[in-house]
Amino acid sequence: MPHPQPSLPAPAHPEVDSMLSRKFGREVANYFSGSPLNRLGFLRSEHSFLSQALNHPTTSFLLCNELQPLVQSKEAKRIQWLKFHDIKDIVGDDPFAKDEETVLKEFDSEKTSAQLVFLGVEENAKGGLEYQGKNLYKGAPFFAVDVTPKGEGKVKDACTALIKKLEEQGTGFGKGRIMELEAGDAAIYAEARQMLDWNARNPFCAQCGQPTLSVNGGFKRACPPQDVATPASGARKPCATRKGVSNLSFPRTDPTVIMAIVNHAGTHLLLGRSKRFPPAWYSTLAGFAEPAESIEEAVRREVYEEAGVLVGRVVIHSTQPWPYPANLMIGAIGQSVPDGETIDLGNDPELEDARWCPFDEVREALKIGVSGLGDPAPPEYRGGLRLPPETAIANQLMTSVVNGFVGVEAKM
Amino acid sequence: MPHPQPSLPAPAHPEVDSMLSRKFGREVANYFSGSPLNRLGFLRSEHSFLSQALNHPTTSFLLCNELQPLVQSKEAKRIQWLKFHDIKDIVGDDPFAKDEETVLKEFDSEKTSAQLVFLGVEENAKGGLEYQGKNLYKGAPFFAVDVTPKGEGKVKDACTALIKKLEEQGTGFGKGRIMELEAGDAAIYAEARQMLDWNARNPFCAQCGQPTLSVNGGFKRACPPQDVATPASGARKPCATRKGVSNLSFPRTDPTVIMAIVNHAGTHLLLGRSKRFPPAWYSTLAGFAEPAESIEEAVRREVYEEAGVLVGRVVIHSTQPWPYPANLMIGAIGQSVPDGETIDLGNDPELEDARWCPFDEVREALKIGVSGLGDPAPPEYRGGLRLPPETAIANQLMTSVVNGFVGVEAKM
Repeated sequence: MPHPQPSLPAPAHPEVDSMLSRKFGREVANYFSGSPLNRLGFLRSEHSFLSQALNHPTTSFLLCNELQPLVQSKEAKRIQWLKFHDIKDIVGDDPFAKDEETVLKEFDSEKTSAQLVFLGVEENAKGGLEYQGKNLYKGAPFFAVDVTPKGEGKVKDACTALIKKLEEQGTGFGKGRIMELEAGDAAIYAEARQMLDWNARNPFCAQCGQPTLSVNGGFKRACPPQDVATPASGARKPCATRKGVSNLSFPRTDPTVIMAIVNHAGTHLLLGRSKRFPPAWYSTLAGFAEPAESIEEAVRREVYEEAGVLVGRVVIHSTQPWPYPANLMIGAIGQSVPDGETIDLGNDPELEDARWCPFDEVREALKIGVSGLGDPAPPEYRGGLRLPPETAIANQLMTSVVNGFVGVEAKM
Repeated sequence: MPHPQPSLPAPAHPEVDSMLSRKFGREVANYFSGSPLNRLGFLRSEHSFLSQALNHPTTSFLLCNELQPLVQSKEAKRIQWLKFHDIKDIVGDDPFAKDEETVLKEFDSEKTSAQLVFLGVEENAKGGLEYQGKNLYKGAPFFAVDVTPKGEGKVKDACTALIKKLEEQGTGFGKGRIMELEAGDAAIYAEARQMLDWNARNPFCAQCGQPTLSVNGGFKRACPPQDVATPASGARKPCATRKGVSNLSFPRTDPTVIMAIVNHAGTHLLLGRSKRFPPAWYSTLAGFAEPAESIEEAVRREVYEEAGVLVGRVVIHSTQPWPYPANLMIGAIGQSVPDGETIDLGNDPELEDARWCPFDEVREALKIGVSGLGDPAPPEYRGGLRLPPETAIANQLMTSVVNGFVGVEAKM
């Protein structure tokens, strides 16, 4: 059964008529963007705010087990939100009771606790928390909590018990790559997944090798100067991340390029496939941006490496957060130079095939042949090219190009 | 003395007339982009290629000491390239003699060696190396080598001796934030600096806390399964990064947003300043993209957090690699919504001031008031607003907007 396509996020502020929107048209909002939450990142350092947010009656918790979200039974299109009392056994009465200075001083590398992440507040919710900082902030708070049973002891046992209870109640965790949640839930899940994964991948400091500690509402991992689990003084080795700011302390996002390449004549699109794709399924080329490249350079390098094609002008189209595990997809459209259009898969043998597809063929496939990577072709498919669904930025890029750059000129 | 402005990189393939370039105009190539090298990243795993590249007569080495580049004396506008025999004492006869499998097997956490990074080849160079892979690759190879004296023993002593000798010869390492190199050298330095810095920040595995090892021409840090320095079997703790692909093994680049925000009437630009800026010096707002945001969302969040202004439509303009330490600056133009233009510095108190500057004032400052952050105002400056130089993407964004979006429509 193919998954029904979920809703896509609405473009931002479509109602506001502005010079930019008149000049460039509506903004493309890709799947996993369009979060309904205000992250209020500057309040992550205020433990009393986090404490109040954790305990408020309007607060919702997204549970993840092995990074999979707790979803409503049957269709799995919506997150199953829980309340604080549901997870109290796992996170304790108030994990935000103390300020960061105290938490660092009392660091004990032998204690395990469940990872919590403050995701933000929904400002339009009724009866939300009111918090007076420099301004008055209002909204229903959202948190993510990692209930993966791991380590030893109380927390693991509480996670195992909760998961069992939820399963008995008929709710369960999503399976495979989650791509069917409704737009708003998808954006919140993307934030939760990427943050929980980052915390789980960084229990040690890459600079000094010592255990790290989650602070700042889950958005920072500090390298504490002491550890009560260490005998004698408790002092640890010095670490450069404790002086000044180090990016190692903060969440990682990997910029990635994904590009629809048009031939010089403006008639064909360059598409490729890897071995793991289903038969006849192609997509736009993509790859990680490398250190010290512009996005435009990364596009040209990747297309040369994977397909041997030389690209001239590159324009950026739109962007998509991609939480598998931590990518920012930067979507571009590029055009090959006339003497650089011969396909050669021999440089970096990443693709099984790449070919120039006529716009007509792509147009037809966008109508009858789109489906998720793991899903069967849709019922209307009658053979020929298959392509990724609307939730993929690749689809948005191709759609843009074959419809006469409709929306490209607009978008850029 | 203000630094004379260095050359900027030329737009890519400006000579090729294409549909995209006719529709969108010339591509903006920002400072630190426009590298003259082909990185040939797919050859980093071939140790025999790296071996030959290291020893070739056309090969050039960029030395960095505490991340500062060795530059030609006097103007410091060009890198001082060295040859293999100059650094042989530091890197040894052939650090690429063995394949990755062997290197991992023989890992000894007590051995120190100087970090080498393969940067790429200049394909147009005469007499360059010819290497037969799947295709024939030609060019003069470039490497970066970290000669910072650190640790103990032979390598440190060799670095100290070489630095002393170079200083006696009248060459030396750049000072402060390097922004005066010619375009091509600047792009190569950006790659070298970011890669050497990443290696220096990640001597341990964030997943398991054990020492890591540089492989893949400096572009990967592996977590070896054994260590000859460990007594008995030499086996180390298991680590998740050894199974499958983990982004922790690969260089990190932090996507950053930087944005020129136009008011709804289309007459003023939102500029801000932090305490560390010189008097009257303002720039566009900027900040890190967070996990699971689109660039467009990150722009809106940062402008709200830092200045309280609400932004509607956002268009992406161009991008700039920024190796201090590892950023990709994604330049955007946005427009505020009519009821969201009151400046409020109270949310995230990062800025000392923010204000709406009339286009005329910005236009004038771009003519007479630009200079690097650490440099004095230019001789033609007669007071009023000061702004960043052409080498900063902030300058390119502002120039674009106040010149009636010349080049914006083009660029996008």
